[in-house]
Amino acid sequence: MSSHILGIDLGGTKVLAAVLDPEGRIIARARAKTQGWRDDEEVFQTITHTSHRAIERAGINTTAIAAVGIGAPGPIDFDTGYIIETANLKFKNFPLGPRLAEEFKRPTLVENDVNAGLYGEFKTGAARGASEVLGVFIGTGIGGGLIMNGALYRGFSTGAGEVGHIIVKAGGPRCGCGNRGCLEAVASRTAISRDIRNETKRKGRRAASKGLVKQDDLLSGKELKAAYDSDDQLVRKIIHRAAKSIGIGIGSILNLLGAEMVVLGGGVIEAFGDDFVDRVRRSAGDIAFDINFKDAKIVRAELGDDAGVIGAAMLARESLEGAVKKT
Amino acid sequence: MSSHILGIDLGGTKVLAAVLDPEGRIIARARAKTQGWRDDEEVFQTITHTSHRAIERAGINTTAIAAVGIGAPGPIDFDTGYIIETANLKFKNFPLGPRLAEEFKRPTLVENDVNAGLYGEFKTGAARGASEVLGVFIGTGIGGGLIMNGALYRGFSTGAGEVGHIIVKAGGPRCGCGNRGCLEAVASRTAISRDIRNETKRKGRRAASKGLVKQDDLLSGKELKAAYDSDDQLVRKIIHRAAKSIGIGIGSILNLLGAEMVVLGGGVIEAFGDDFVDRVRRSAGDIAFDINFKDAKIVRAELGDDAGVIGAAMLARESLEGAVKKT
Repeated sequence: MSSHILGIDLGGTKVLAAVLDPEGRIIARARAKTQGWRDDEEVFQTITHTSHRAIERAGINTTAIAAVGIGAPGPIDFDTGYIIETANLKFKNFPLGPRLAEEFKRPTLVENDVNAGLYGEFKTGAARGASEVLGVFIGTGIGGGLIMNGALYRGFSTGAGEVGHIIVKAGGPRCGCGNRGCLEAVASRTAISRDIRNETKRKGRRAASKGLVKQDDLLSGKELKAAYDSDDQLVRKIIHRAAKSIGIGIGSILNLLGAEMVVLGGGVIEAFGDDFVDRVRRSAGDIAFDINFKDAKIVRAELGDDAGVIGAAMLARESLEGAVKKT
Repeated sequence: MSSHILGIDLGGTKVLAAVLDPEGRIIARARAKTQGWRDDEEVFQTITHTSHRAIERAGINTTAIAAVGIGAPGPIDFDTGYIIETANLKFKNFPLGPRLAEEFKRPTLVENDVNAGLYGEFKTGAARGASEVLGVFIGTGIGGGLIMNGALYRGFSTGAGEVGHIIVKAGGPRCGCGNRGCLEAVASRTAISRDIRNETKRKGRRAASKGLVKQDDLLSGKELKAAYDSDDQLVRKIIHRAAKSIGIGIGSILNLLGAEMVVLGGGVIEAFGDDFVDRVRRSAGDIAFDINFKDAKIVRAELGDDAGVIGAAMLARESLEGAVKKT
């Protein structure tokens, strides 16, 4: 029996599929957009077509795939492999795991997309070898995940890791979740865009950032980085403030968990790089007690877009090995 | 060989010693004040005298004690059993574990006092049977601890559980630790006392709470409860706000950890009881996602002052059993 694994990363805008060889290396990838589909079947067809393309590119037969792992957004019923709902896709109580198992005739594992990405970093990326890890992924929102005692930690609720929804500034800006002062509401790309828009309006026509503010749109990482590099002082101030806030959240979590490592990823980290990470680290060091900060590594994610497919595939393989061991 | 265990809870103001029988029941207690001692030797003598008194009262010989467990404040070197330092006692790099082992000629375990208390609640109190537990103890400060995967969790740093020093209100009131907006700085008895003092001063002579504000003293749980029950509106508002803030912190942690149970203890909880706990629960429910809140139990600690001695004794016994198993 082969032990190639199919890993899939399903996002609100794209799906990425990859085939991993028995040594855990990616040997082929395929990608498609998932935006604008009318219904869950159309999203599901995109997932399977993209997966079959990756398998073809790997030069193997579908029967050479031993298991399928998929990382997907939204609360997941881990017992059944159903997606309960998703904000950006058309899934609502959709049997994603069972349908993929039926399509590929193989054991299938469904994991939260952020957890899958963190698990990829844990197995083959920045958190390799660590056993107590916090993952923080900063993009349009802020997602997170936990490795505890060397294993993915979903908590009693299975919903652990919502780093974006710890309150760092009670009474602060309104979050998409309805609360005020969530980390996501003060430091995500959405929050950064809102602050630039509001403060530019307040400063009037002469603000350098005015060119950025065309409408109520979310600014892209590229747009933000260009404004930052062009020395737009307002944008720089707001980016620095976001890094400080993320450090406040991470410092708080270090005090709570005494973590070994914090892995930072997502579009904002990719756009702003090491300088941003340094600012996060300094801010976390101001908050966390020395005992909880001095040996904690705060590092950048290494795998980029591959993290999710690798993590999902690794989880599927381990689940398979667990199942084999049981019999 | 007997399996009676000596459990000791060392605090900034008192030391409590208890003898547990082989079934884990407390069969004798002794207590002494630890305030005002001149040096570490004097504190240590108080600990040993109190312990010997508890052993005498148990009607057993010191040789009938199989192990000694002590919960103590301050960062602890778990490898050596040294107390690195304490805020309220004279210990500075004091070999508490080795000295107790020498005194009683028995294996000795030193644990953080808050962890020991939580462990007591976990083994025989409010958190019996749970495996993912957050402990929050609200007194002059706010202490905390974690049970993860059914075991005491100290984190990679060994300093995990500092619930009082997560930031819930960035830029908020200054904390004893130097940061702003720590949970302890907005919701401990110290913070409540400060708020009553400041707001009473602001409101001038006619404020009902004026009788409470004699000096810069910390108000006792009793004083606060009396003012609260006498319908002092300012005190009621400040107490309710503290409960809400604690709920914000707990809701944040539920989102991060997906915990099974939160145990609330300490002087503030003992003074204000179930109404306070209800307010904390409602506030946490406003913050935490449904998946992370709906099955999470938020309950009062059950063991009061006995939690620490029981937890320390249980940890010592388990450590002994672990050591026996190894040989």
